[in-house]
Amino acid sequence: MTRRVEILRRATEVFSRQGVAQTSIEDIARAVGIKREGVYYYFSSREDILLEIILPQSRTLLFNFQNIAAGRAGVQERLHAAIRNHLESYNPGYLEMSVALREDHGLKKKNRGKEEARKMQELRRVWKDYTGLWMALVQEGQGTGQFDPALNPKMVAYGILGMCNWLSRWYHPDGDLTIGEIVETFFAMVSRGIALPAGEGEAGGEAGALALP
Amino acid sequence: MTRRVEILRRATEVFSRQGVAQTSIEDIARAVGIKREGVYYYFSSREDILLEIILPQSRTLLFNFQNIAAGRAGVQERLHAAIRNHLESYNPGYLEMSVALREDHGLKKKNRGKEEARKMQELRRVWKDYTGLWMALVQEGQGTGQFDPALNPKMVAYGILGMCNWLSRWYHPDGDLTIGEIVETFFAMVSRGIALPAGEGEAGGEAGALALP
Repeated sequence: MTRRVEILRRATEVFSRQGVAQTSIEDIARAVGIKREGVYYYFSSREDILLEIILPQSRTLLFNFQNIAAGRAGVQERLHAAIRNHLESYNPGYLEMSVALREDHGLKKKNRGKEEARKMQELRRVWKDYTGLWMALVQEGQGTGQFDPALNPKMVAYGILGMCNWLSRWYHPDGDLTIGEIVETFFAMVSRGIALPAGEGEAGGEAGALALP
Repeated sequence: MTRRVEILRRATEVFSRQGVAQTSIEDIARAVGIKREGVYYYFSSREDILLEIILPQSRTLLFNFQNIAAGRAGVQERLHAAIRNHLESYNPGYLEMSVALREDHGLKKKNRGKEEARKMQELRRVWKDYTGLWMALVQEGQGTGQFDPALNPKMVAYGILGMCNWLSRWYHPDGDLTIGEIVETFFAMVSRGIALPAGEGEAGGEAGALALP
């Protein structure tokens, strides 16, 4: 493990333990067992450290969804895979870290380094593209008659993201529920929740078909 | 408007504008146009101010749901009313404020006043009771055969809360979507999402009934 990676790993631990807002560069240096200059050799600020934790995770999330979207599986299978991808990448500190990042970023607007501004811009683009893929999947299912076209794809996409991201506030890895169980429950809720109601449209499902002569 | 209420109102504005973590008692005093002692006359700390913003809102949310739960409306109507209650109480700063509250609270564990500890305890109880009402509603619907008993009520409850709470991260009051539209979309997604699938059980719905001899 390189020193740089070690700093990021310890920083993640300290952030979760004592809260991001209460964590200084000194705290992170102490956790690694080095001087604060040693942290500044690799990272220019706490914002920079947060970006280096969140950005690679967000890139992976997007990359995996791009692969799912490009696959030949049906809309339902891709919905299932996308929910699994999101929940399996789940990082218990993500929500709090992104709140803190927004605050650090807002604070330093004027005297921020070019590199951090570039990374923040990339993070925003990754989030935008990721949300866009969710909306596109919903729209595709609406186009094929599998999902209800009356539902606004943006609200559906943010609804799913909300369900998944909220794990940060209630899920405990050593609790009684596994990520696998949550994937199945959320997939059941979402796929039925946005399905074209039986009897409506041509792809009304088996029950609808039974009503035809 | 009393001075106390004015401080709470200005504090909410400053928190939203510059982020809770970056807001000091001095900033709040400046926004009200008084000295910091004037703020300390009413509130013992930033944690205290956050509690006095979040606790009454949370109590109202719970109180309204208790009324909905005690009503004579059917399970679907109560689900609809509960989603509306949650989204109409939506406070764009709630998520960030509760993250900050957790951090302030963690930081001061040792030298906190009794009063703040009591309020924090009440807030935790309100949140617990509120989540409990959501789970109870799901279980009731499962008992009557309207909701799918295969779904874990806890995951369903947190799924709904996640959808609703996530508005903090994407909803803009002056954007193109109204809270009313979001209520209807989320209700459609959730009520269909957790309904007993057609054809299963006695309350399998119209389409299921058509398949019977």
